Amino acid sequence: MFFEGSEKKLEVVVKARQPSLRRFGRPFWDNMVTAANAEILSHLSNEYCDAYLLSESSLFVWDDRFLMLTCGTTTLVDSALLFIEHQGIKGVDFLIYQRKNEYHSQLQKSSLNEDLRRLRLCLPMRAYQLGHLDSHHHYLAHYDNPYQPQTADHTNELLMYHINGDVADYLRSDGQTPQGVRERLQLARLLPGFALDDFVFSPCGYSVNALRGTDYATIHITPEQNSSYVSFESNLDLGGEYRFIIDGLLEILKPHSWDTVGFNSETRVSTANQACYVEQCEVMLNCGYKVQFSHHKANNNTVLPVLSL
Amino acid sequence: MFFEGSEKKLEVVVKARQPSLRRFGRPFWDNMVTAANAEILSHLSNEYCDAYLLSESSLFVWDDRFLMLTCGTTTLVDSALLFIEHQGIKGVDFLIYQRKNEYHSQLQKSSLNEDLRRLRLCLPMRAYQLGHLDSHHHYLAHYDNPYQPQTADHTNELLMYHINGDVADYLRSDGQTPQGVRERLQLARLLPGFALDDFVFSPCGYSVNALRGTDYATIHITPEQNSSYVSFESNLDLGGEYRFIIDGLLEILKPHSWDTVGFNSETRVSTANQACYVEQCEVMLNCGYKVQFSHHKANNNTVLPVLSL
Repeated sequence: MFFEGSEKKLEVVVKARQPSLRRFGRPFWDNMVTAANAEILSHLSNEYCDAYLLSESSLFVWDDRFLMLTCGTTTLVDSALLFIEHQGIKGVDFLIYQRKNEYHSQLQKSSLNEDLRRLRLCLPMRAYQLGHLDSHHHYLAHYDNPYQPQTADHTNELLMYHINGDVADYLRSDGQTPQGVRERLQLARLLPGFALDDFVFSPCGYSVNALRGTDYATIHITPEQNSSYVSFESNLDLGGEYRFIIDGLLEILKPHSWDTVGFNSETRVSTANQACYVEQCEVMLNCGYKVQFSHHKANNNTVLPVLSL
Repeated sequence: MFFEGSEKKLEVVVKARQPSLRRFGRPFWDNMVTAANAEILSHLSNEYCDAYLLSESSLFVWDDRFLMLTCGTTTLVDSALLFIEHQGIKGVDFLIYQRKNEYHSQLQKSSLNEDLRRLRLCLPMRAYQLGHLDSHHHYLAHYDNPYQPQTADHTNELLMYHINGDVADYLRSDGQTPQGVRERLQLARLLPGFALDDFVFSPCGYSVNALRGTDYATIHITPEQNSSYVSFESNLDLGGEYRFIIDGLLEILKPHSWDTVGFNSETRVSTANQACYVEQCEVMLNCGYKVQFSHHKANNNTVLPVLSL
């Protein structure tokens, strides 16, 4: 029973005065999702955004940008190449492609280097490995093009590994309901005023997309024992006013280790967790984002699991 | 420039009153090494043991047992299967197969699960994963057969990742000599009275086999920046009289992280290093060995590398 929860991520901003991406229509986005070997399960829309819940994670489409997250053994690089082919690189202002720390890289259909080789045939890309290869590391590649993000443009990712406790137990149990998961994740408190679109997978797993005006958030849960993973991503200011969300998720899900990735936003660990082990780094991208990556382990002197194979 | 220094390990003890393994002759051991896609570079012998230095690590052959370590993308499981085919499982008293924490599992020719599936077609094997999948973990599989190790039978492994400092710089430099490496590793102090057989690889890399009576030790160095790895293994009592060797190697090579694996021997980290982060576990094997695995990280609040790809 293994499922790679850890996602690949693609974010693209098109140039001003391009047609709205939301007008590309459902067949176009169906094709984009199919290219990655995923499918659209449901959608939620508001004035600013169409949020699609996928069989493997999420797609958010705004007028001038889209964000696609896909987990498992999906091939998100194929969606990136399809979009570039459709739009032409001249219509693209910003493109970033990430691969988060994977549990079982050898089960993926391609490596970051292979993805990068294909992308570089179409557009100039700068690429980075953040962190040591033998520990959690994050791959990040971006279109080598000057870009000026807006002042309020910040994104935070919280990526949790090996969750523990009552909520983790519930997430692994039979008979979960969307309402049961929402309550245990305290979504009404953590994401106040957000419209939610969620899905409980069989035999386990949970995804939710959340919209509130121009704010978005998404949570994906792969609860399987010994390879559990939960990701949270949002454009809320998690370094400031919404810092309680990270503290809340860490408290509820009790991960053994977690990573944070911040784009023009500092995601600090609260004092309650200062006993944990931390490694971190940052890089200033020439496309206008300062990216901060941190890897955390909850406790020192941990007794590790011994698993029979 | 990537080379997987991390080894696979095979140790086999044959039943009493079997012909001496040393008498199997060089062609037999050449075949065993070839099966793993390695070759014998040189050898060192004493009254008890034939120690072969390989293009990828080491082979030690005693009368009743052998130990084989192979790194890179070697296929050590093929050597295990060849030996079982030659000897017959009825002649085998003990067999253990390990895979240490790899940097790039996706570049290996097989996964632990694939190796295990093949071994289990020939003999009953118990197998364990020691440690979390998202951090350093150690795979260990053994022939499910009652075995009683001798009292003085203890083995220690010290596996170092991301070495730093002057010695690491020398190991990455041009124009190294065996004598230059021996001096910097302080082998005369750390392995007093041992006969040495060593090799400096091109463009870099160093291996040494060491024998002193019934004692053996071996060191393998893959110094490449960003994926460096150094392994030390010995049957000296590193939890007791020879504890200074581990402290010495950590001091000389300054790894960012390291693992210890002890078989009926406790490898403790000295007080000088207690500031480091430690995770550990142990398992009692039904073949008579208590195995202790520890993963260490040198410092808290480490600034991680950012590598351009």
